[in-house]
This record gives sequence, C-alpha cells and structure tokens, in this order.
Amino acid sequence: MNQSIIALLTDFGTSDAYVGIMKGVILSRCPTVQIIDLTHEVAPQNIRQAAYLLGTAYQHFPAQTIFVVVVDPGVGTQRQAVAVRTTHGIFVAPDNGVLSEVVERETVFAAIRLPIAAESSHTFHGRDVFAPAAGLLANGAALRTLGTAADPLLRLPLLTGVDNGRTLQGEVIYCDRFGNLITNLGVFRWRGNVLALDRGDAAPLEMDAAALQIQLSGRRLLAVRQTYAAVQTGDLVALISSDGRLEIAVNGGSAAAQLGVGIGAEVTIDYA
Amino acid sequence: MNQSIIALLTDFGTSDAYVGIMKGVILSRCPTVQIIDLTHEVAPQNIRQAAYLLGTAYQHFPAQTIFVVVVDPGVGTQRQAVAVRTTHGIFVAPDNGVLSEVVERETVFAAIRLPIAAESSHTFHGRDVFAPAAGLLANGAALRTLGTAADPLLRLPLLTGVDNGRTLQGEVIYCDRFGNLITNLGVFRWRGNVLALDRGDAAPLEMDAAALQIQLSGRRLLAVRQTYAAVQTGDLVALISSDGRLEIAVNGGSAAAQLGVGIGAEVTIDYA
Amino acid sequence: MNQSIIALLTDFGTSDAYVGIMKGVILSRCPTVQIIDLTHEVAPQNIRQAAYLLGTAYQHFPAQTIFVVVVDPGVGTQRQAVAVRTTHGIFVAPDNGVLSEVVERETVFAAIRLPIAAESSHTFHGRDVFAPAAGLLANGAALRTLGTAADPLLRLPLLTGVDNGRTLQGEVIYCDRFGNLITNLGVFRWRGNVLALDRGDAAPLEMDAAALQIQLSGRRLLAVRQTYAAVQTGDLVALISSDGRLEIAVNGGSAAAQLGVGIGAEVTIDYA
Repeated sequence: MNQSIIALLTDFGTSDAYVGIMKGVILSRCPTVQIIDLTHEVAPQNIRQAAYLLGTAYQHFPAQTIFVVVVDPGVGTQRQAVAVRTTHGIFVAPDNGVLSEVVERETVFAAIRLPIAAESSHTFHGRDVFAPAAGLLANGAALRTLGTAADPLLRLPLLTGVDNGRTLQGEVIYCDRFGNLITNLGVFRWRGNVLALDRGDAAPLEMDAAALQIQLSGRRLLAVRQTYAAVQTGDLVALISSDGRLEIAVNGGSAAAQLGVGIGAEVTIDYA
Repeated sequence: MNQSIIALLTDFGTSDAYVGIMKGVILSRCPTVQIIDLTHEVAPQNIRQAAYLLGTAYQHFPAQTIFVVVVDPGVGTQRQAVAVRTTHGIFVAPDNGVLSEVVERETVFAAIRLPIAAESSHTFHGRDVFAPAAGLLANGAALRTLGTAADPLLRLPLLTGVDNGRTLQGEVIYCDRFGNLITNLGVFRWRGNVLALDRGDAAPLEMDAAALQIQLSGRRLLAVRQTYAAVQTGDLVALISSDGRLEIAVNGGSAAAQLGVGIGAEVTIDYA
Repeated sequence: MNQSIIALLTDFGTSDAYVGIMKGVILSRCPTVQIIDLTHEVAPQNIRQAAYLLGTAYQHFPAQTIFVVVVDPGVGTQRQAVAVRTTHGIFVAPDNGVLSEVVERETVFAAIRLPIAAESSHTFHGRDVFAPAAGLLANGAALRTLGTAADPLLRLPLLTGVDNGRTLQGEVIYCDRFGNLITNLGVFRWRGNVLALDRGDAAPLEMDAAALQIQLSGRRLLAVRQTYAAVQTGDLVALISSDGRLEIAVNGGSAAAQLGVGIGAEVTIDYA
C-alpha cells in the first residue's frame, strides 16, 4: 500500500480555501497519501520565518516525507520552482531561500526545476505547480521525470550568533504562541546541570548553567533553568528551547508581552 | 481498500471541539476515510460566503469526493437536510442555498432528504445528521438508502456582473487573508497578453489587458497585470485571480486595508 | 491494514510548528495512522477547559481511539506522564487533571507511567514523550510495555450544579466561537416538549420546558426552547446544548458579547 506522507507549510492561513484546494489537487493524483499540516500561519510572505519553522520540524518526520513549502512572494515571476531530494526529505518549493536551513544541514542528491504550464495561473502556483508535483511524487513518479536540472538554489545567510570568547551575542529569531522568545544562540544540550554548546567539528563547550548571565533588552537573568516551573508564576526564566536554542519565557505568561520585545531584539550570554 | 475522501466546510471555527467531534462520528462509521478540511472559518452563518468558497474548491478534488457543508443558521427548523449526487462530487448539507454554485455548474443525478432522528440534538446537526450520513456514504452505502427524495433545492441568486457593451459592472464578493479583493467580474483566461472573457455558449470576448481601465471605490487602475510583482511593493495592482475573476491587490500588502474597501464595493472595467 | 486513529488536543495553537512536529514523530513510528485534530486552541495552560472539551468529544470517536492531550504547565517537573486504557479510548497525557471528565465516566483498565528519557527536552514532552508513546501504541505496542504502573491519577473536582429542590444553581463553564454560553446544569434530554434531567441512578426529573425560569447575570429568560430560530434574530434564547447542558445563546449573534458574560457567571433554573 502507498504510505506516502506530504507535509504542507504555507502562509495561506486557514480562513480561505487555498490549502483545501491544494489538498484536493494532491488527492486527485494520489488518493491514499497522508497529508499533514505543519502550519499555514507563517506571516504573509515571510520567507525567513518559514525557513526557520521548516528547520525545526522536518527532521522529526520520516525521511521519505515530501514537504511542500509555499511562501512565495515572487509567484508568477522568473524565480524557479523546484523539487529537491535530500538525505532527509523531498522538498517542493519556490527557490527563494525557504529551504536554506534544510540545505545547510542535508546533502542534496538532486534538484529539479518544475515547468510552469501555459495554462497555470500566475498567482497560485501552490495549486497549479507545487501540489501537482507533490501528488505525482507521492504516487511514485521519479523526481527526474518532473522537470530539468535546476539552477543552484538560493540560500539566505543564516542568522547565527557570534562567540567572542567571553560572550555569545545573538538575537531573537522567533516568538511562539505562548510569547516565548527563541534566540539564535545554541545549539545547547543538557549534560546533567551543565550546558554543552555545540561547535560543529570542535568539542562542545561546557558551561555552568547556574553561573550564566543573560541580557535581553536591558533585563538581566541569572542562570539558565531546566523548566518553566523552575521560577514562580509570572517570573522571567531563561531556558533551552526544544530545538536547543536559548529561550526567554515567563512561567505561565508571555515574555514577549511582559518585555515588549520581539524578533530582532539583541541577546547576550556571558559565560566567562 | 477504501479510498473515500470527505472534505469539510463549516463555520464552526477550530477553537471548539465541534469539528473534531464530527470527524469522530465519521470515523466511527468509516475508519479508513480520508478527512480533509476545506476551511472552518466561514463567517458565522454566512451562507453566501460558504457557497463561494465551495465553488472555488470542489472541482479540484476527485469527482467521488463527499463534501460536508455545515453553515446552518436554520438548524432544528423545518429546512431540509440533503445529500446530493452530482457530476462532480457528492454534497451533504442543509438545503439553504449553500450548494448554489455547485448546482449552477453540475448536473444533479439524485437528491435525498435526510431524516432527522428523534434523538438528534436540535442544535448540532453536523454531528447528528450530516456527519453520520457522510460516514455511511464513505463506507459504501448507496445514496438512496439514506432517505427519501428531496424537495427541489434552494438556489441563491448568483451575484454575476453586468456587461453593458462598453463596461463590465460588478462588485467585490470575497476578501482573502492577504487582503486581496476578489470580484464577480470574469471568468477571464490569459491568452498571451490578451484577456479572454468567458461568455458561456458565445465566443469569448478578447480584451487588451494593457488598455483596460478599472475603477474601484474612487480609485482608477490602468491595465490588468499578470503577477503581483508586476508593480512596486506597496502599489495597487489589478490582476486575474486563481479562479479567473478580476482581483484588486497590493504587492506585498493588503488592498482591503489600503483602500478601506470590503465585500459589496462596486467595481467596473471599461473595455471600449 | 493498520486502522489506528490518534486524536490530538493541545494548547499549542496552529501558528507554530509544534503540532506538526508531534505528527511527524507519530508518523515516524506508525506511518499509516489516521491523525485527527480535536482542537489546539485551548487557552494556554487551561487544564479545566481541555478536560471539558475532551469530555464532550471522546465518546463520539471509535472506542479504540488513542487520545493525546497536551496541556501541560508542569512540563519538566515531577508530574507523571501517563497512558491510560479505559472502556472508551486510550489516553496519553500529563497527569494533571486533564483526564478528569473521562475518568469520571469510564472504567480505567490500566494506567502506565511513561518514562522520561535522559535526552528528552524539558519543555516539549508533546514531542519527546507523548507523541512517541502514542505512535508506538498505534503501531500495536501493548500498553504495559511502555512503562510501569502509574500512581493514582489526579482528578479535578467536577463543577457540577446544585439542586436545592426548587432551583438548579450552576455556572457558565464554556463559551464557544459563536458566543454561546454553556453551563454545568444538566444533562437534559428532550422528551417531546418535556425536559428530562438526568439524575444518575434515580429516575430522571421531568420539567415543563415552557414554564422554566432562567436567570443569568441579572437577565431573566422564560422557557427553554428547542432551536436558536425559536426566537427573533438578535434575541436571547435558553436551549439545550448538543451535550445536554443548559445553554444561553443569541439567535444569529453572541450571547457572551450581548450580556458581557463569560466563564464563571452564575446561572439558575427555577423549576418549582
């Protein structure tokens, strides 16, 4: 039996029928595929936000999953539409940087440029280009049959923090539903009460979580804690997000609202 | 294997458990059916909006799809509940006009009036009438076994534009998440740089897209463009929506917000 | 073929990728499971609201359904994570009272404490504890293989109304998308024009719906009606909700907005 899985990530919202229409197109080509919503609430045309969310999610899906990412301000222009097979996942998307986090971490085995049919709309390639390609792939079509070799993929510069030997300097890159502020400092892993900072090929840098000083928007937090509940309800807490980044939160509340802070705010960790 | 597909369209929102409950009822009758959300964010009790969204979507699904449409201000009254088989799709819904766009375009092969069981609630026929019928159909039940022949279906007058020989006059009939304003002028198709207006049995009327003058709410736009990106970011643009209608948008922004215009606003195209 | 069904109920919202990530984790363990959303819009960390919504929904699903409930303010603390098999449904959740309504009505056959792996995050047990357990169960794992016997489950005191022999006294316990106010008075069933109040083992108490006097927030309503449309558009109406509770609504409008009333408001029914 066909066990294909397609995961959708768009900025279409769910109040219109656009996402439902894409699913109809997919099912018309592969009636038994599982279709999963990653989210459709990416801020309109915010490519960087979509790239971040995709980066936090794709590795938790089966490696054969087909991801369809439609955040596409350039729809109808000359930007190429692509289908990309990697070490973990197949990605169907406009080539506008939305795959930057994936391409940073995975090997690309093949990248195909999808043709835009003459009868395609100029405003809804989700329906007319990306969903049909995904449906065909789910139904067993080989990637190479969908188009021709793609031009090199566009990659956005990653917003990585800077380590100056005593301090990590970074910024808030995401704010979730709860008002938790996720930064680009990390990836950290807990080893007991010690935080280990991943440094790629170099050995991880170990830090005493209890001795770290965090600054965000004029506020200072002492120590990185393990849980929201490590502080009183309503209090600020620094902790490690589920994707290993430094996160600033309020136990039972919203750090974004309490601090009046959002994406782009500067954050530092003194670890000297 | 059962490959039935049920698509849901309601005004229930997704913050309550109503939609989830309908899915439970369906799965209790057909555990392997695919259930797809068209949208649940129809404005409460807005039958016309639901009819429009259904009209834009149903043809993109497989022809055997079962659509369950529950926008039902008359729940518990004498309005009939129906299941309707057409040339493209089976529709389970209250008979209040919500199927108007479908019935305008498709041939109805059979229309059944669904019985309301004595133990049914008077407030949630989505759970007690429509979902059970859809689940039975998905599981293979014949339409005629679900009830008796329905009375003629209620059809809302369609909001079609008027062609006076020099000007098309219409109105805004939908505003999407992006603030794009969709009108009832069309259906248009691009033929290169020429717009062809569908006129049913008559030959399409060809128009020079670059020479058209559009008026909306005191603003004049010159030319219909092919893509959002044909104008500068922040500028108004007239183009053809993904369902072939005249659409007024702002590249990278919201036409509804910028113009302060919504559903019902008058729009004209001078093509003389 | 695997016909497992997993239903999700969380306070994660749908604007982040958290729910999608949980689905990826589940599908990595059981690629053919059906995953259904009950809702993800529970107010952040509102355990009682989640318990109520679960209580209205679970019985409408097949009895073998696996429910994953993640409203978890104590994530990362010592609260136990559990998997519970009952007469109707298997439930995977933090043990914080969110299963109170289920445990009140169903027999618990087995309750297992799920281990928290050393490499688990401290902030997202939905991904690292609950979704993996649900995926394994969906794929056929026996409940007992997932952990050890759980401690007795936490049960929140149920908010039940009081019957003083002439009056039922209760409160508003839920407000839905339409502004309908659901109370804790009931369960009622219609018998023609008579309302029968369920009293457990005792015989139901029959009431003349037309003679009942309802008070809510200084407003008096005479009679309980069968449908929203029993009153004029814009008028208040008392009726019986789809789960058998006294409900105060406005035909075509929002009772919550019109009365300025929300959860916790006192309500009485005089039936003497």
